[in-house]
Amino acid sequence: MMIKTIIKEHHLELLFSKGSFGIEKEGLRTLMDGRLALTPHPSVFGNRSFHPYIQTDFSESQLELVTPPQTALNEQYQFLTALHDVANRSLSEDEFIWPFSMPSVLPEEELIPIIDVEDKKEIIYREGLAEKYGKKKQMISGIHFNFSFSPDFLNALSSHFESEEVKQQAVNEAYLKLSRNFFRYQWVLTYLFGASPVCDPTFSDDVKSYSRSIRNSPLGYHNSFDHTVSYDSVKEYASDIEQMVEEGILLEEREYYGAARLRGKGKAVSNLLTHGIRYVELRSFDVNPFDAMGFSYDQTQLVDLFLKTMVWMDKDSDSQDVEQGMKQNEVTAMEDPFSESHYKAEGLALIEEMKQTAKDLNLSPDYQNVLNKAVRVFEHPELTLAARTVRAVEEEGSFVNLGISLGKRYKNLSYEKPFLLRGFDDMEMSTQLLLFDALQMGIDVDVLDKHDQFLELTYKGKTEYVRNANMTSKDSTISHWLMGNKTVTKKVLEKHGYSVPKGNEFSTVKEAVAYFDLFKDKAIVIKPKSTNYGLGITIFKNPPSKESYEEGIRLAFKEDSEVLVEEFIEGTEYRFFVLNGRTEAVLLRIPANVTGDGTHTVKELIEEKNTHPYRGGNHRAPLEKIKMGEIEQLMLKEQGYQFDSILEKGKTVYLRENSNISTGGDSVDMTNQMPDYFKKLAEDMADALGVKVTGLDLIIPDLTLENTDTQAAYSVIEANYNPAMHMHAYVHKGEGQRLTKKVLTMLYPDIELS
Amino acid sequence: MMIKTIIKEHHLELLFSKGSFGIEKEGLRTLMDGRLALTPHPSVFGNRSFHPYIQTDFSESQLELVTPPQTALNEQYQFLTALHDVANRSLSEDEFIWPFSMPSVLPEEELIPIIDVEDKKEIIYREGLAEKYGKKKQMISGIHFNFSFSPDFLNALSSHFESEEVKQQAVNEAYLKLSRNFFRYQWVLTYLFGASPVCDPTFSDDVKSYSRSIRNSPLGYHNSFDHTVSYDSVKEYASDIEQMVEEGILLEEREYYGAARLRGKGKAVSNLLTHGIRYVELRSFDVNPFDAMGFSYDQTQLVDLFLKTMVWMDKDSDSQDVEQGMKQNEVTAMEDPFSESHYKAEGLALIEEMKQTAKDLNLSPDYQNVLNKAVRVFEHPELTLAARTVRAVEEEGSFVNLGISLGKRYKNLSYEKPFLLRGFDDMEMSTQLLLFDALQMGIDVDVLDKHDQFLELTYKGKTEYVRNANMTSKDSTISHWLMGNKTVTKKVLEKHGYSVPKGNEFSTVKEAVAYFDLFKDKAIVIKPKSTNYGLGITIFKNPPSKESYEEGIRLAFKEDSEVLVEEFIEGTEYRFFVLNGRTEAVLLRIPANVTGDGTHTVKELIEEKNTHPYRGGNHRAPLEKIKMGEIEQLMLKEQGYQFDSILEKGKTVYLRENSNISTGGDSVDMTNQMPDYFKKLAEDMADALGVKVTGLDLIIPDLTLENTDTQAAYSVIEANYNPAMHMHAYVHKGEGQRLTKKVLTMLYPDIELS
Repeated sequence: MMIKTIIKEHHLELLFSKGSFGIEKEGLRTLMDGRLALTPHPSVFGNRSFHPYIQTDFSESQLELVTPPQTALNEQYQFLTALHDVANRSLSEDEFIWPFSMPSVLPEEELIPIIDVEDKKEIIYREGLAEKYGKKKQMISGIHFNFSFSPDFLNALSSHFESEEVKQQAVNEAYLKLSRNFFRYQWVLTYLFGASPVCDPTFSDDVKSYSRSIRNSPLGYHNSFDHTVSYDSVKEYASDIEQMVEEGILLEEREYYGAARLRGKGKAVSNLLTHGIRYVELRSFDVNPFDAMGFSYDQTQLVDLFLKTMVWMDKDSDSQDVEQGMKQNEVTAMEDPFSESHYKAEGLALIEEMKQTAKDLNLSPDYQNVLNKAVRVFEHPELTLAARTVRAVEEEGSFVNLGISLGKRYKNLSYEKPFLLRGFDDMEMSTQLLLFDALQMGIDVDVLDKHDQFLELTYKGKTEYVRNANMTSKDSTISHWLMGNKTVTKKVLEKHGYSVPKGNEFSTVKEAVAYFDLFKDKAIVIKPKSTNYGLGITIFKNPPSKESYEEGIRLAFKEDSEVLVEEFIEGTEYRFFVLNGRTEAVLLRIPANVTGDGTHTVKELIEEKNTHPYRGGNHRAPLEKIKMGEIEQLMLKEQGYQFDSILEKGKTVYLRENSNISTGGDSVDMTNQMPDYFKKLAEDMADALGVKVTGLDLIIPDLTLENTDTQAAYSVIEANYNPAMHMHAYVHKGEGQRLTKKVLTMLYPDIELS
Repeated sequence: MMIKTIIKEHHLELLFSKGSFGIEKEGLRTLMDGRLALTPHPSVFGNRSFHPYIQTDFSESQLELVTPPQTALNEQYQFLTALHDVANRSLSEDEFIWPFSMPSVLPEEELIPIIDVEDKKEIIYREGLAEKYGKKKQMISGIHFNFSFSPDFLNALSSHFESEEVKQQAVNEAYLKLSRNFFRYQWVLTYLFGASPVCDPTFSDDVKSYSRSIRNSPLGYHNSFDHTVSYDSVKEYASDIEQMVEEGILLEEREYYGAARLRGKGKAVSNLLTHGIRYVELRSFDVNPFDAMGFSYDQTQLVDLFLKTMVWMDKDSDSQDVEQGMKQNEVTAMEDPFSESHYKAEGLALIEEMKQTAKDLNLSPDYQNVLNKAVRVFEHPELTLAARTVRAVEEEGSFVNLGISLGKRYKNLSYEKPFLLRGFDDMEMSTQLLLFDALQMGIDVDVLDKHDQFLELTYKGKTEYVRNANMTSKDSTISHWLMGNKTVTKKVLEKHGYSVPKGNEFSTVKEAVAYFDLFKDKAIVIKPKSTNYGLGITIFKNPPSKESYEEGIRLAFKEDSEVLVEEFIEGTEYRFFVLNGRTEAVLLRIPANVTGDGTHTVKELIEEKNTHPYRGGNHRAPLEKIKMGEIEQLMLKEQGYQFDSILEKGKTVYLRENSNISTGGDSVDMTNQMPDYFKKLAEDMADALGVKVTGLDLIIPDLTLENTDTQAAYSVIEANYNPAMHMHAYVHKGEGQRLTKKVLTMLYPDIELS
């Protein structure tokens, strides 16, 4: 009551409507035939004692995906989505994540593997659980939803209380009210989201009929005792749990499985008394088989509003209400999925109350849609997740068949665009790859600024910052600026004896034109000093006329106040990615092209090539689709073709002169084919520039020729301080090199990898 | 001949007209009364065995300023100017650089100090010279002008010769022709630029009448033998010199003092045979007393064109011509300064030849002006430097008096704007200070990109790059980007427990406006995420109305797509400059202001304040002039004044709300007054950001209060990755801190300083 008054008086509704959200989702690793996978936890996840995101709880076969607290609901969901991509792509080929709360096909009780971790106490605790509840019950998976008030809201509250202590008391009271009312009304969520109506016979033979949620029923995941824990005060809550441990009713405090657990600083409940309640853990949710993440975003919205309503509503439950609510939840769990709710009227009334909360808090219209949908589900029990599951099981023939079908589908979803990390797919691709690797390896990740691709990484207490996946503490600021200035880069490389294109820098058109005589017999490139996506660059592969030269100069000066004229070196351009002293990847880029088969037109060949999943648009894929614009048409024409020409078998036509990936070019991984001689050269150049991460562009006329006294075998034309990595990972031809992982091992040389 | 043909055939005139230029200028350190300073070489220059720019030759009292080769004449002159600023400002108060070739008041021969250096061989060589020539003759100072063809020209030549060897022969021949013709016509330069018509009696009692150049006369600086060295071929040149050394006529090869010396790789003349001529050293120039640098830019232009003409002209001198030229030079040197030249006709003809060269090479009109002036000097001998010197000596009463007067004036010139380094004064001020320190300390400097403030420094073989005087190899690229992002900086500092202004980041106006309630009771700042000279910032020192808040939000969104709203912290803002772990400077900036004296108007007080040499405009001075625009008028009005109000004694009025130096604010050095408590805090913050060089802006309400459990004593509002240093060096009030020197000692901890 108190907090609500303050909110209303001081117009803190907006801040109250925010929150901090975490989600934990369990899922069994399962073989393709539906049997529980008995293999060890995948070693690609490194050491479990550190992993903040991908864990196990009871069984070696049960993955637990844990999002860190996020200050926005959508960010929580994005993180959960990303963890699913990481988990799915990290599993061995013959395993997938079981999409139900109720287990896949279980072996004999004794064959179910308890976690195999270093800490023996953890194993002993679980052996105790196994003895007390049976291993099979421990294999039920669920969703835990963690909620706390937003930090901004808590900050804003401070000024309205006489001390932090008094404020914490009020906050505690709000969390307690939330929990009490949650117990009272949780049945509504079980009605809507209960999704464990059936199980495999290997779990239990006792289940003879469908229910809404076996998991929320007496057969499900509960403490095996009758004691109740009081939510009247923090003190009573803590002392009830402590006493049960003392009396041996609970093995440890964490064995208390209440649907709403109060969480404070650290794990001991006694800390709740000293540091107050930090968040509440809501544990009654079944895995939703119809969502690839086991819980839909709609569901998180409804739960969020439900929790706010539990605080916002006038009603506050006493211990009798709590008991009644637990009873109603059990009844609901055991109802026939297609039957109307026993408590329909109460449910609809609560939804009205939630609508009022959404209105009071000025929430987005999304929330009203979610609530309207809930009303429909109350009116049509066949729309509950439980009923839908039953129908799907029947359609698919069996619970196991449905699980296999859905589980495989969700795994495949994570492979549709393996170069993206869903949840973070609005970031640059190289950063997505790095995030994937960090999440997989168990490096703590905080996206400090999404627009700026700015990450904070922490592993075993050591913090590193990374921007654009390639800028780290290992490179100096001066080497960055050095590479950012083409003239300086050239001067430095030249001073160190490397072969750079000879050239001159001009700051006026007049001066540049006066130098024409110097270039008039040569192939040259005219370019603005700071190039920007190739604008203003003119290449003369044959010596230019004075008029063309002047025109090129003028074009370049449109883009920059300084212009370079350089020798044009004939040869093939390769990108050397040097990382921490080693050439880790070499890429050849080929202009957009198609090769004929004697039956299809150029247009058809382009369209066919563009269907490859690696090809997309706007830097959302490692390769871009080939366009069919004027430039491409002209290029074709010069080669004697049109878009509707049928191209003879084996004939390759080019659609572009330039080899940029961004204009539909192909990427070819040459890492293994590139002679060590040139790889070593690139490494030495990076060393001369004093840089750990760089993309060097070398023009090499002939890979079989090395430097002689009079003739350099290459020319280095650029050193990039912000080199892309994704283009090395997913290539048109060749293996692909995972550079982001190597960036992480450069930052954390002692990281434990399989 | 050969090269000229190639130039004409292949239109290489432009490249031929360039060159590479170096200058060496000697000058005696002299006491204020005109006596030679007998003090040691100033220790601020560090170790002479490394110093590339500020050296000694024969005597401890004789400074030698040496520019490195520059590819443009104006750059050579700029470097020479900079070295003069460095030398002048490094001398002790009671010394200056003597502005003549002929020495200042010399002591007894035995008291003239030979250099005191580590290398004993150097001392022994000079003792030999002292014995052979007398110490006094060694005290004559001169200008040496080093010239080589431009690297671009030499590169362009390559393609027109069958091999590098053949090319080098042609280049050698061009340098030899230049030298032979130089000997033939050097008298012209002695006529025009001879500037040693008199000397002090302590140098010689034999000089009874004025001449054009004592230095070029038999009394001057010559070898004491009759042997001549052949310039017919490199081979003959080298063997002539080698033979003289062998026969003991020369102590060492370097004792050969020919007016044109051929220089190759390293010091031994034998290298000329293997590696060819690299440059020619022209040695016959007197110090020009009428120029602060001892040689005017006009003179360098005339010499440059003279040298080109020596190559370009059809005439090629044989050994007889050389002998005749040397004779004519001696005659010219001994002529009465006011008399017409014996060889006037030949001189005017040569100037015509030079005009033709300028035309052929399409040189700028400047060169024609310089030549026209030379013609006038031939017509009017009283315009020669020698005649002008005589007149000035007579006006001033004596040679010594004139030397004292000019020498002091030139020294003072270097102090007029001590915050600038002439020659590099188009670069940023912090870079100018760093360059000054580097030149003084003897760090090898190469300006890789002037616009980009990009320097290459080398000391004892260790190369470091520096940009903006503050970006070095010591800082990481990620800390740079971290500081460049205000949100990330705040997050990181906050995570480390530092007090930052609480605030929120918004990406739409709507979102920001929705948060109004959170801010409506507070003093706040609204600012674009990336500020740019303060555009789009609104400060509400009192809680804003909703309308004002919205207006502020809209203004900020005009500047950036993301906007921060932060608490406004009352207190004084200080800039803490942390360098390599230490708070090396603290600056307080005060808004533009004047204080009354009871008699002057505000306008007069501003004008008076603006006369201070530290105040300038457009970032060319450490402080800016106070403007008298509308904003200032409004500010005054709010305080009850106008520009023509007479301000009462002791009353301070402010002309601006903001304290930026760029709007006329005052800077106050608080380095010593700032409590260690806050300095340590700033050092710890820099450490948390992982940065060696940063400017942290802290708001501190009360310098006497430290943090308590509930109240922070400060708030950190920004960490600058590109903090200015000049504003700490030259302050309105206080000592000033030389940070640039500390940047250099961070880069070179083992540098030898006094």
